[in-house]
Parts: sequence; C-alpha cells; structure tokens
Amino acid sequence: MNLKSIILAAGKGTRMKSKLPKVLHKVCGTEMVNHVINIAMKAGCTENVVILGHEAQMVKDNLKNNVKTAIQEKQLGTGHAVMMAKDHIKEDDKIVVLCGDTPLIKESTLQRLFDYHKENKCVATVLTTKVDNPTGYGRLIRDDNEDVLKIVEQKDATEEEAKVNEINSGIYCFNGKELKMSLSKISNNNNQGEYYLTDVIEILKNEGFKVGAYEGSTIEELMGVNSRVDLQRAENILKNRINQYHMENGVTIIDSNNTYIECDVKIGMDTIIYPGTIINGNTTIGEDCTIGANCRIENSSINNNVKIQSSTIIDSTVGNNTTVGPYAYLRPKSNIGENVKIGDFVEVKNSTIGDNSKASHLAYIGDASVGKNVNIGCGVVFVNYDGKNKFKSIVEDNAFIGSNCNLVAPVTVKEKGYVATGSTITDDVPGGSLSIARAKQVNKEGWVDKKGIFKK
Amino acid sequence: MNLKSIILAAGKGTRMKSKLPKVLHKVCGTEMVNHVINIAMKAGCTENVVILGHEAQMVKDNLKNNVKTAIQEKQLGTGHAVMMAKDHIKEDDKIVVLCGDTPLIKESTLQRLFDYHKENKCVATVLTTKVDNPTGYGRLIRDDNEDVLKIVEQKDATEEEAKVNEINSGIYCFNGKELKMSLSKISNNNNQGEYYLTDVIEILKNEGFKVGAYEGSTIEELMGVNSRVDLQRAENILKNRINQYHMENGVTIIDSNNTYIECDVKIGMDTIIYPGTIINGNTTIGEDCTIGANCRIENSSINNNVKIQSSTIIDSTVGNNTTVGPYAYLRPKSNIGENVKIGDFVEVKNSTIGDNSKASHLAYIGDASVGKNVNIGCGVVFVNYDGKNKFKSIVEDNAFIGSNCNLVAPVTVKEKGYVATGSTITDDVPGGSLSIARAKQVNKEGWVDKKGIFKK
Amino acid sequence: MNLKSIILAAGKGTRMKSKLPKVLHKVCGTEMVNHVINIAMKAGCTENVVILGHEAQMVKDNLKNNVKTAIQEKQLGTGHAVMMAKDHIKEDDKIVVLCGDTPLIKESTLQRLFDYHKENKCVATVLTTKVDNPTGYGRLIRDDNEDVLKIVEQKDATEEEAKVNEINSGIYCFNGKELKMSLSKISNNNNQGEYYLTDVIEILKNEGFKVGAYEGSTIEELMGVNSRVDLQRAENILKNRINQYHMENGVTIIDSNNTYIECDVKIGMDTIIYPGTIINGNTTIGEDCTIGANCRIENSSINNNVKIQSSTIIDSTVGNNTTVGPYAYLRPKSNIGENVKIGDFVEVKNSTIGDNSKASHLAYIGDASVGKNVNIGCGVVFVNYDGKNKFKSIVEDNAFIGSNCNLVAPVTVKEKGYVATGSTITDDVPGGSLSIARAKQVNKEGWVDKKGIFKK
Repeated sequence: MNLKSIILAAGKGTRMKSKLPKVLHKVCGTEMVNHVINIAMKAGCTENVVILGHEAQMVKDNLKNNVKTAIQEKQLGTGHAVMMAKDHIKEDDKIVVLCGDTPLIKESTLQRLFDYHKENKCVATVLTTKVDNPTGYGRLIRDDNEDVLKIVEQKDATEEEAKVNEINSGIYCFNGKELKMSLSKISNNNNQGEYYLTDVIEILKNEGFKVGAYEGSTIEELMGVNSRVDLQRAENILKNRINQYHMENGVTIIDSNNTYIECDVKIGMDTIIYPGTIINGNTTIGEDCTIGANCRIENSSINNNVKIQSSTIIDSTVGNNTTVGPYAYLRPKSNIGENVKIGDFVEVKNSTIGDNSKASHLAYIGDASVGKNVNIGCGVVFVNYDGKNKFKSIVEDNAFIGSNCNLVAPVTVKEKGYVATGSTITDDVPGGSLSIARAKQVNKEGWVDKKGIFKK
Repeated sequence: MNLKSIILAAGKGTRMKSKLPKVLHKVCGTEMVNHVINIAMKAGCTENVVILGHEAQMVKDNLKNNVKTAIQEKQLGTGHAVMMAKDHIKEDDKIVVLCGDTPLIKESTLQRLFDYHKENKCVATVLTTKVDNPTGYGRLIRDDNEDVLKIVEQKDATEEEAKVNEINSGIYCFNGKELKMSLSKISNNNNQGEYYLTDVIEILKNEGFKVGAYEGSTIEELMGVNSRVDLQRAENILKNRINQYHMENGVTIIDSNNTYIECDVKIGMDTIIYPGTIINGNTTIGEDCTIGANCRIENSSINNNVKIQSSTIIDSTVGNNTTVGPYAYLRPKSNIGENVKIGDFVEVKNSTIGDNSKASHLAYIGDASVGKNVNIGCGVVFVNYDGKNKFKSIVEDNAFIGSNCNLVAPVTVKEKGYVATGSTITDDVPGGSLSIARAKQVNKEGWVDKKGIFKK
Repeated sequence: MNLKSIILAAGKGTRMKSKLPKVLHKVCGTEMVNHVINIAMKAGCTENVVILGHEAQMVKDNLKNNVKTAIQEKQLGTGHAVMMAKDHIKEDDKIVVLCGDTPLIKESTLQRLFDYHKENKCVATVLTTKVDNPTGYGRLIRDDNEDVLKIVEQKDATEEEAKVNEINSGIYCFNGKELKMSLSKISNNNNQGEYYLTDVIEILKNEGFKVGAYEGSTIEELMGVNSRVDLQRAENILKNRINQYHMENGVTIIDSNNTYIECDVKIGMDTIIYPGTIINGNTTIGEDCTIGANCRIENSSINNNVKIQSSTIIDSTVGNNTTVGPYAYLRPKSNIGENVKIGDFVEVKNSTIGDNSKASHLAYIGDASVGKNVNIGCGVVFVNYDGKNKFKSIVEDNAFIGSNCNLVAPVTVKEKGYVATGSTITDDVPGGSLSIARAKQVNKEGWVDKKGIFKK
C-alpha cells in the first residue's frame, strides 16, 4: 500500500488579479501549492501528483522536487481533474485529494483522516467540519445512523439539508481501486457541464461500499485562497501559528503580530525576537540571541548569544557572542567569527572575518579574508573591483587598518601590519610594518578670511 | 441645481489636548477636514463651505484650494453653524451638511443619500444607521407608516424612544429653499441655549414638507474623532480600507495591519509590499515591484519591476528594473534611471543617474549629473559644498570613480574617465584618462613593535 | 500601621522553557517581579518582601533596590510561601499578598482593595472578579447574606459551587496579627501535601473574624504569565495601556499596535510617533516632536520640536529643533545641541555637538567636542583610536571639515579652521587657516584604452 496525494492546482484564480497562477502565490514565503505538497509529504504521502492547467509550465517549474504532474487541459470539474491522475492510481493505493489553494491544512489533520479511513475500513472518507453558518458550502448529509448519505451543494439543498452545519472540506481519502471505478462512472450531465468529485461519494454509497465522513478539521484549515485579501488572511494565520510554535519552544517574541518567520526556521531557547523582524528560508538561530528590531535574516546560520540590531543578513554565518548592527548588511557568503563586532553602516560580502575582529562603522569588506583580532577602521574600503575584474584581499591576524584607508585588491596586510589612516594601499604590507600613503599636512594661515568664507 | 456641502469645522476639540484645532489632525496623512472636503467633492459637491471657528485662520490656511469659508464666532450649536453659511445657500441648491471630524464617511454613501433625497422628492433627508446599542445617540423616530416623525436626543427620549436603534448620523441633505426658511425659525430656547440643526427636521415636518430618513450608512463611517484614541482608531480603519482596495487590485500586502499607504497612492498589479512600509503623498508605484520591509516613499514615481529594500525615498523617480537599498536614502529630485543599483548606505540628492550605473555602497551623490554605465565606488563623495556655495558635478557615460574618491564640484569626469581609488579630484578628467591624486605607499618595517602597539 | 506586600516569586515556571526563572522575564522592558514591586510601592506599600525559591540568587540580583527577601527552600504551597515572610509581619501591619507573575495588576485596584479592607474592618479581604467562564479558577463562595464563606478550588467544588462565577484573584489583604495566627494553623493534610493560603480564609471565618471579598478587579489584571505565549499577551495588553495613556495626554500614536513604549517614558503634547518605534528606559521626549518610523530611543532626553527618522539613540540628549536621521546612530553620551542636523549614516559617540552644526551624511564623530556652526563633511572620520589608546579631538566654532577628511586625535581645529577635502589631519589647525594634506591630481590621457578597461 502506498499513500499518495492528488493535488488540484489547475485553476487560474482570476480574483487574484495576477500574471502568476493562483497556487504560486506565496504564504509565509512558500508557494501555496508547495505548502500543500509539504504537508502531504509530512503526513506520509510517498507520491504526490499535482494536476496542472492554467500556466502549467510555470507552475511545474516552481514545484518542489520529486513531485509528479498531470495536465488537465480544460477545467471540467474536480472529478475531471482527479481523472487526469488516473495513471498514478494503483488499486491498492490510498489516495488523498487536496486543493493547491488551501495552504493552512495541517499535517496532523490529514494523519487523523488517514487513520479514520483505515480504522473504519472505508473505501472513501470525506473530511468535514462543523461551522456556525454553512451558507455556501457543500453539506454532508448523514442518515439516521450517522452514516454518510451524500454531499449536497448549496444550490441543490432542500430547506432541511440547508440547515445542516457539517460541511465538506473538499479533502477526501479514497481506496485506489474504488476511486478509479467510480471516477469512470461520473458524468457531466448537469447545469455546469462539469464532472464533480462529490458524485463519487453517492456512486460508492449506492454500490454498497462503506463511505465515511470524518469531522476532524477546523474551518480555518480549509480556507481557500481566492484573492489577495484571502492571501493576507492566510499569511496572518500561518504567521501566528509559526510564532506560537517558537514561543512554546522557549523563544520570546515581543509581538507575534509583527514578527515574520518562515516555516523552516529554527530558533534556540531564550532567544528574544524584537518586532519588525523577518526571518526567511533555511535559517537557524541559536540560543540566547537578541534579534531585531527590524532585521531581515535569510538562509543564514546564527550561533549562540549573538546580538543583531536593525540589520540585513543574507546567506551568511555569524559566530557565538558576535554583535551585528544597527544598520549592517551581510551579503551572501559572509562568514563572521566569534566575538566579532560588525557595527553600523558596515557591509560585508563574500568574506571571512576571524574571531575578535572589529569593523565598527562605515566600512566595506568585500572578497576578503580577515584574520583574528583585526581592527578595520571607520571608512575602510576593500577595493575589490577595478572596473574590469574582481580580486581578493587578505588581512592577517592582529593587523590594524586605519580609518578611511583603501586596500586595493589583490593585496595582503601581513600579521600585525599597521596601515596609517587615510592611506590607499596597493602593495603588500609586511608583518609588523607601518604602511603609509598620504601627503603631508600644510596649514595656510589667514586663508579663510582671505577667501571670504563665512564672511556674513 | 447645484450640489453643495456645508462642513462644520468650528470646534476646538478639547479632548485632543492639542495646540492644533481638531479638524487639522491627520488621518492617513490628510487633515480630517480635507478628507471630508475630498469626499464631498468626489460625491459631486461643486461648492463646499467650511464653517470655521476655533483657530479659524489656521484651519483656513490648511484647507484645500477652492473651498469657501464662513466664520462662526461663537459656537452656538449646529443650527447656528449652518446659518453662518446662509449666503452660500441658493433656493434651488441641494445642501449636504457634514462634520469636519468624521473622516470615514464614504463617497458612495453620500451619493446614495443624494439619490434617495431626489428620488423621494424630500426637502430634507437624514442619513441614519442602525446600531446594537444606541445609547448616547440621537434617535430617528418614525411613525406607523415608517415616515420620519422627529429626531430625539438621548436625554429627551422616552423609554419607548430610547429603545429605537436607528440613529441620526448628523449628516443631512436639504433643499436650499426649505433649509433657509426653516433655519430662520429655530430658536435657542433650550437648556444649552443652542440652536440645533435637528429642530429643522421637526419644523419642516410640522409645515407639511416631506422629510426622509435614509438608513444607508454604517456606524463605522460616522465615527466622530474627539480624542487621539479616536484618531488612532480612524487611522486604523482607513488604513485597512486603503489596503483592501489595493489588494483587490492585485497588490500583495503581506500584512495589512503593518502597511501604511495614503489615499492617493497608486500601485500596479503584482507588486508586493512588505511590512513596516509607509507610502505617502502623490506616489505611483508600477507593476512587479518589491517594496519593503520598512521603506518610506513619499511623492515619488517608481517604475516597474523595481526592488526597494529598507530605504527612504522622497520626491524622486526610479526607473524600471532598478534596485534600491537596503538602507539607501533618495532625497528630493533624485532621478534614477533604469537598471541602476543604488546600494546600502548611499545617499542621492538632486541628481540624475543614467541607466545601468551603480553606486553600490557608502556613497553620496549630490547635485550631480551621472551618465550611463558609470561605476561610483564605495566611499565616493560628490563634494558639492565649499562652506559658502553649492556646485554641480558631471560624470559622463562609462566613467569609473574609484573608492573613497572626492569629486570637488564643479568638476567633470568625461566619458570613460577613470579616477583612481583615494583621489581627490578638483580639475576635470579628460575622456579615457586615468586621473590620480594620491601619495606613494611607504612601508616602515618593524614600526609596530618599536611603537609598542599590541604589546601585551 | 504599615502597609506591606509579600510577593510570591519562588516558582520556576517550567512552561516558559527558559534558563531564566519565570519572574525575571520582562514585560515592556521590566521584569515581571519588578512590575509587581513597582505597583505595590505606588499603591502605598512601604515594605515589600519577595519570596524567593528557584534561582533565588539570580532573582535577588535583579530586584529593585530596597526590597526585602525571604527564601522558600521547597515549594510547599502558597501558605508555606507566606510563612517564610513571617519575621516581616508585625501585628499591626496590613499585608497584601501578590504574585510575582501577574504584572498587569493595577495600582488603583490595590488601593481600592486596601480601602475596602479598612472601611469594612475586615481581618482578611480577598480580591475577586466575575468571569463568564470560571472553569479552572478557585470560586468565592458567599452565604445568603453575601458574606464570604470560603474559597473552593475547581476540583473540590460541588456542582452548585462550580456555577459560581466570582473567582479568587490570588491577591489578599490581611491584618498582620490574624494572618500570623491563622498561618500557624494551616496544615498540609491534603492530596498535594501543600500548605494553601486559601485555608487561612476558612480558619479566620470559623474563628468568627470578619472576612471580606472585594469584587474589584478585571480578569485581564489577574492574568498569570506561565508561558511565552502568555508573556506576549501581557506585553500586548500593557503596551496598549501605556499607549492609551500617552494618547490621552495629547500624543499622536499612528498605530498603537506597532509602537513599543516602556512604562517610565515621558512624552510631550503634540508629538507624533510613527510605527515601528521603540522607546525604552528613562527617556523623555518633548513637545511637537516627530519620532519614527522605526526608531529605537533608550535612556535619552529629546527636547522640543525634534525630528527623528529611522534612527537609534542610546543614552544621549538632543536639543530643540534638531533633526536626526534617517539611519543615524547616537551612541551613549552624545550631546547634540539645538538646531543641529545629524543626517543619514552618521554615528556620534561620546561627543558634544554645538548649536547649528551639521553632520549631514556618512560621518563618524567619536570622543569629540564640536562647537557651534560647524560643518562636518560627508565621509569625515574622527579617528579616536590608534590601536592602543583612545584620544579626544576638538573642533571649534565655525570650523569647516571637508569631505572624507580624517581628524587623527588628539587634534584641535581652531575657530574658523578649514580642512580641505580628503585631508588626513594629524596636527592642530590654527584659527582661520586652511589645512590641506593631499597629493596633486595627475591626469594620464589615453590610459583607459591602453589598459583595456571597458574594452568589450
């Protein structure tokens, strides 16, 4: 037996008003369809088939690896969509049908659905939930024994049926054999001319199979995203769910409403996150850190007891006890050691900075290897580009680079090299040497009055 | 027939605790009274009369153009306030009375009020709404035929009347002739010694005129702003209304609660706005842009596919495919071309920057004309001020300005001019020339140990 | 008579998942236990005894001055905790028992509790509140005369008692004598083997003393913080309470949900705070200021009509009419005069800057005394560190420091001294002199083509 998902993702989503197909819009940094794929995989689906239609190639290009796809050329209903995947449905598979635009469904809910399906030996199980106001939803109609009778759409519901507040989630679990059989029997003989997946339920029921309905979801999980307003609502719900998870794990989040952490981020105990912070991608943050306010950290690895204020860090690593910011920018491949200070208005790019070094303010360190205990003065520029090529510079341990110096790459400042303030260094600096490249100061007395500056 | 508004704006607003009169406090960047004027104008009012009282001159100085004013020396009631505008009321005018402190009223609501007024041939129509708890509001009392009888204030209401949950909005539409006539008949013979506009309703009713009540508002729209707490509530409501509008138009707003867009801003489809962003004034943003987090953009024109991170842009233009920030500052009159990079810690002011040019970090470009394909190195300063005057510099196409250079204005770097790192340039650089102004590097070996630096 | 508090702060708070004991977690910048101490002191308690247990020394080290402590070695119940303070309880004291993890209790509520206790001549008074759903709380059971009978825990409540919706706050006021007497009579003869403080109520009642219950709290005030989720909720409530206070005092806060002001901050009338702003510690802000967006201001004194944009200010003072930012950083001991401009990408540290001076962009002013009307050019660095020691520099009134200059401390630029762009200044500049230290510009024509730069 294999557990497989079929994920409906063929729709355009006209109300999104977008050049992008609906399921590629992102919630907390991940495309909706990829959220659904992730959840299916975590819930145990070993094969996932995404049904493509509108902008099929664009959706396909953005899907996670190892997903199968099928094309639904015309959007002729949910039943029709599932038919497109029929080559992937084996007789002894369990098939869960999911929607690519419901990114809030939980892995645990799917697992409980699968358990219910198996324990009750159903051939089909509908996931349902109860709501205060069911208007607009398909109703799950049960008989006097609480067994499933059928699913009735709003427009077809009798007055009695309309009062039912148990609704169809649009998520189902099927046995492969009976799904295939029943799919072959549904027709588009209705007003819309569409093939409805819900017809499968009635067909199976009529043929005497056991059909279950598992009331195990919440309405929040089922929210379909059809507009940017929905998208923002989903973002907000998922954001607070992620933040709640971290708080329960011992992270202090000062304001959950104003903290934006993507799904895969890991954060250690006793770290405090200040408001306005965005943490994206494959980022790991250690224990006892202070992050924020207003940081953006993406695909980076931050060690323990690091303090990052109002800074942007992309694709980088930061060692223990290091401080960054405020207003620092670590561009990709910045590997910052332990107990380092990267201060205000400092940019680092594609560089390694050793333990106990400092670049306290207004500096650019690009394409460099900086050793330990190095002091990078204010206004220092690692000149890595001559208009034609980029070069790398090296500053060895215990060196001191004076303020407003330029290190014109490729150049090496050897151990304990000392570069005097205001020097442009084009040649290597020997270890323990002073290197200086500047003009002598001349004072011209009386010049200011003569030039008439500040006369007024 | 002319549609005119009379806008009551004479009050002080003691609870605001402010030196500023109440109606000049801003909601989403616009003074409350100007919001009301804008809405009246959009709803079709061709003449708008603002009734001034407290700090009349200050309010007048801040009103939108082409508004008429009248002075209410003493605040003797709403009826008295409207009387002050009587010279502006012509017999065949339709007059809508509005309050300068209800900035949330919608244009569509006023239009429906006018339609109701005309279609039902009323001489006076009260805008009303129903609320769960009417305590404190004036009640709209109807007779058995649902016709308007009168408006009763809370304190004068019988037990029966107090139960009525249809309330007076304080917004009315009148025929000019009957308004003038009835205003002349109201008295201040009451406990407060004030002239109430609501008395007009009863007078007209008693004289046999048709008075209507149009239940077509929401309580939210009618919110009067009397304190800073109210002000913040109004800001929040209007903010979400504006954000909803943009989302419905195809803009992704990650967090509507944390995105601050003023009324007149235009944003193209598939642009994404990250949290903490403030977009003010007469700003236009194109399609496919990424804006934020934590940007402030004011009175600027941003083209398509522009990416702006954590930056401040004031009174400037940014071309297609350009990236700005993080931590960049475009001051007024910065005109940035297409495919340009304005990186971190870069300020631009009163300058033009041509297509494909770059100022990637830590630079100041002021009062300059920069051509195409120019590279402005890190730490470059356009020195535009000598302590006495400001001058302009020119950098022509394909020039390269090395790091930490100063271009002392007025100076021109001609096409393909190349300024060596660390040079202070005071004279023009000929095309295709290297220009260099720096001292030779000298290394003094053994100096560090001799000086006893890093001894320990 | 002395009013004293006993504050229970011995618990670990396992659900916080923290190395820090629960009561040291901060809400709006203050440890919870210190919030409770502050409130007790403001409500009139002249002696405050904190009961320590888990990590007693760490908690003690973080307590406010002048607080007494007692140690509860084992956590054997609330009654046991109070017993630990018995040496501090005098017969004629009034004792209020508080919890160190309820930081939202209000001073006014405690004062009303004390008044009730005294006016009704109770020996013990329980603070209570009514809630919609009392499940889980201890119920306050009254007799037919509304007199207190006892407090019943959830698990011990009869069906009838469980319906009571008046709950025990866990906050009590006692007369010292009867508290001591009754404490000596409680036992741990129960399932948990704990000494319950609530037993005191029944003992006193049985002995014929008058026990009161004052229903004078709100459930919000009583919120015990047991997890980081609770902590964030408490932060949010207190944040909005503080913001409401400032708004009522005439401060405009654009978005209360996104503005983080600590308890002791003072702000003048007609100041406007933009979103994303954090104001901490002992900070005072004057009237008519504009602060934000996205500022962090800590322990600083900001005068009137100051405009601070997107900047960080720590332990500093800013004079009237000065503008700071965007993206400026005032580090500790920056004393900025009146009408000064500290612009973008400027850091100031341990320096005085006189009236009407400007550092408009990309500068570092450290360990300096800067006079009046001084112009600090773009890229200027006050070089205060030679790798071994820090030194101080002086720039006198009306001096002009050209762009990208270095002032190598210790150095003085005397009145009206003028330092030419790009100079590194190591010797004093006499008053009215031009000081220049740079190489002559040389242009090498044809170099660019010869070098093959920009060839393609």
